[in-house]
Parts: sequence; C-alpha cells; structure tokens
Amino acid sequence: MTTVLKLGGSVVTAKDEPETVDREALADAADAVADADDELIVVHGGGSFGHPHAAAHAVSDTEGTHDATGVREIHDAMGELNSAVVEALQDRGVSALPVRPLSVASRDDDGTTTFPGEPIATMLGEGFVPVTHGDVVAQAGAGATILSGDEIVTRLARQLDANRVGVCSTVPGVLDDDGRVIDRISDFETVASALGDSEATDVTGGMAGKVRALLELGTPASVFGPAELGAFLSGDRPGTLVHREQ
Amino acid sequence: MTTVLKLGGSVVTAKDEPETVDREALADAADAVADADDELIVVHGGGSFGHPHAAAHAVSDTEGTHDATGVREIHDAMGELNSAVVEALQDRGVSALPVRPLSVASRDDDGTTTFPGEPIATMLGEGFVPVTHGDVVAQAGAGATILSGDEIVTRLARQLDANRVGVCSTVPGVLDDDGRVIDRISDFETVASALGDSEATDVTGGMAGKVRALLELGTPASVFGPAELGAFLSGDRPGTLVHREQ
Repeated sequence: MTTVLKLGGSVVTAKDEPETVDREALADAADAVADADDELIVVHGGGSFGHPHAAAHAVSDTEGTHDATGVREIHDAMGELNSAVVEALQDRGVSALPVRPLSVASRDDDGTTTFPGEPIATMLGEGFVPVTHGDVVAQAGAGATILSGDEIVTRLARQLDANRVGVCSTVPGVLDDDGRVIDRISDFETVASALGDSEATDVTGGMAGKVRALLELGTPASVFGPAELGAFLSGDRPGTLVHREQ
Repeated sequence: MTTVLKLGGSVVTAKDEPETVDREALADAADAVADADDELIVVHGGGSFGHPHAAAHAVSDTEGTHDATGVREIHDAMGELNSAVVEALQDRGVSALPVRPLSVASRDDDGTTTFPGEPIATMLGEGFVPVTHGDVVAQAGAGATILSGDEIVTRLARQLDANRVGVCSTVPGVLDDDGRVIDRISDFETVASALGDSEATDVTGGMAGKVRALLELGTPASVFGPAELGAFLSGDRPGTLVHREQ
C-alpha cells in the first residue's frame, strides 16, 4: 500500500511568523506518521518559509527568475523546513530522507514538469520515507519557477501508482456553502458553486484547483485536518473523499 | 562549449581538519571559474566533509546502509561543503545552483547508476551553473551507497555530450615512475606500470581508476593541479591530457 501524504505548509509552520516551525503541530504530525504502516511519501508545502521569499523575488509557478541568489534564497528556506520535518520523523524512528525538487525536477518551455521517479522508488523499496516539498525548479525559457507541493503530490501519485492520497491542511475537509464538510466529491460540477470556478480565480492552488487535480488523478484522495491525520494513516477516510466515479 | 570540471575534495577542504573549508583555495578556484567563458558543470569531492562520515558508517560505493540517520549525516556534511562552493561562486557573480545527488540519482541492484540529466541540462540552458558533488544515494538491495564525484563526472560528461573534462586535484597531473607529469595518455597499457593495476588495487577512485574511466569516456580530459585551473578554463591543456586515439 503506497500512500502520498501532503502536509500543508500552514499545518507545520506558524503562518504569521517568518520561517518559524510550529513545533507542536509538527510533533503531532510526526507522531502520526511514525505510527503508520503504509509505504509513505511525504510532501510538505512552504508555509512561512517558502512563500515570503518567492513573493520577494516575484517568482510563481508561471513567473520565473534568472537570479541565482534569489533561487538559492527560496530553496534554502525550503531546505530549512525540510530538515525540520526530516529530523522530527527520524527522531521518532522513521527512516526519513530528504528529496529536493530543484535537484531532480525541471520544466520545459510550456511548463510541463519532469520529476524522475527512480530515486523515490528506490528509497521506498529500501524502506526509506522520502520527504519532499514545494520548491523552485529550472524551467526552459523562464529561468526558475515554483513547483508547488500540490503538483508534486498528483505527479508522484501517478508515477508511483499510489493507492491513496492524503491532503492534510488546516481545514477539516472541503466545505460546502454552509461551511459543512462535504462527505464525498465524485465530479467537479456538483461542487463548483461552493468552490468557485477553478480556471478563473484559482491559479495559486486553492481548494478548487486541488479538488479538480485530485479528481483528474483518479486515485482515492482524502482532504482532512490535522486532528484526523492518525485516522487517515490507519486506513480511515476522514474529511472529504475526492474520487471520481469509475 | 560544455565543460565538466571536477574540483577534488582535497583542493577545496583542509584535509586534516574535519569539515573545514580551505577558504583561500576555494576563493582561488572560484575566481578562476568566474573568469571562464564555457558552459560549466562543477562537481566537487568530499574531502574532510564526506569521507570521515562515510567511514564512520562503513558506507562505500559497494557497502550500503539502511540507517537513515547515517545517510543524513553524510549527506548533510556534503551539503555544507556544497553550500560553501555555491556561495563562493555566487559571491563572484556566477549563477551557481546546488544539485544534490541523493535527490536525483539512484542505483539498481547491480550497482548501475541512474542520474537523470534533465535538471542539469535545463539549468545550463538558462545560464545557471550546476554545482554537484559526491554523495550517498539509494541503491536497490543495499540501502544507500556512495556515488563518487569521479563517477558523476564521467556519467554527466557522457549524458550531456560535454566537449571537455577537467580534473583539478592536488597533484599537477598524472605522474610517471620518476614523478614527472606525463604529457599525454592515449591508452592504459603504456602507463599501467606507473599507475599500478587499477582492477586489483584501486576501488576507491585513485589515479589509475580515474585514468581508465576517462579513457573509456572518450571526451578529452585534462588532469592538473590548482595552479593551472585558470589556464584550463581559458582553453589550455595543462597537466596530463587523457584522451584515447580515435
């Protein structure tokens, strides 16, 4: 059983303090991961580490930079957060190892991402737990652009033929118009009014974009809050199940 | 003109002091790289950073480990040296970016290395200077093993169709029985007596193994000392030219 687990940047960092790990939240998440039986790939977001640096250098998933010092600043900040996550997991006996997208992933000039899967697949086969993250990567014609943790999740889930995807963010699931957690989403149209038009308003990876990408993926995906991480990793389907009808 | 430049670990670190950069030697090397016109890929060795940690965990290019904390210790030490090299280059206006082999490379169970070339090729196309290094990488059946800087040099030179290879170490070239620099080596047999039998005595990447691998590569390679780095990068062929007859 191979599971791709996304830990939202806002789950493991203190959102309003620059480059600050939320130690308590990270410890809780690491405890849950240490108890998991599945073969796990962990992907974390940027939170208060990556986003301020990316904004300062005006770099996004479509706007690039050729300034190597800027690229390094974003990448090093993400490296600090990645080290904190890897360390929290290793402290609990998890054989976590870092995988840095700048080293392995790249984009061609129409924005298509290449993220070779061999290193992660080999790590998994040897019992290691790869821990990767949103990062800045080289893109043909643009210098370097942001590769989001969300895009990494769907890409790796597809390449590694994952059985399940878990998206742990600060909300307890995908919410309807009345703020209640939607139990299951099988197609985008039935929730479009609650989520808004993902094409027009959602280029930064908000919930509509996440849901659309997870539906396209086809792998059963659960969207849930930090309190449900242990339940998800023990096989439950907390929060919202996003899975198109087969 | 694409050049793969190996900076020996002993060139940029203080060999007898654990995890100590030789700041003066690194500054000289970085000055020379900053003056180069070629499209460059820089590969550095481990020196006093990688080797002590690899030895402490009994990890080599053939002996692996499944201890993730050990893997991380070796990898983090190499990351510190890599950061120092990238920073020295960026300080001189070189658009250097780190490429960490643990993230991108892996080995199958017969030891064959996969090192996808897209990220480095994309960086080169955008004017960045990839800076990579000997590292520990996941290997099927063995956990994680050492991928030497020397193997990375020949692998990347082949994949990226490099025009030249430069190997800068602490000796001024390949030396004959009398300690004089050999001007040119076109086949291994003529120098075998001076270098020793590479098969039997040289599993750790000594000079005989380097020469044999560079001859097999087919790309013109120069082996020279730090004083000749500038000359090499301006197009000269200092030290020993290793290149088989075509």
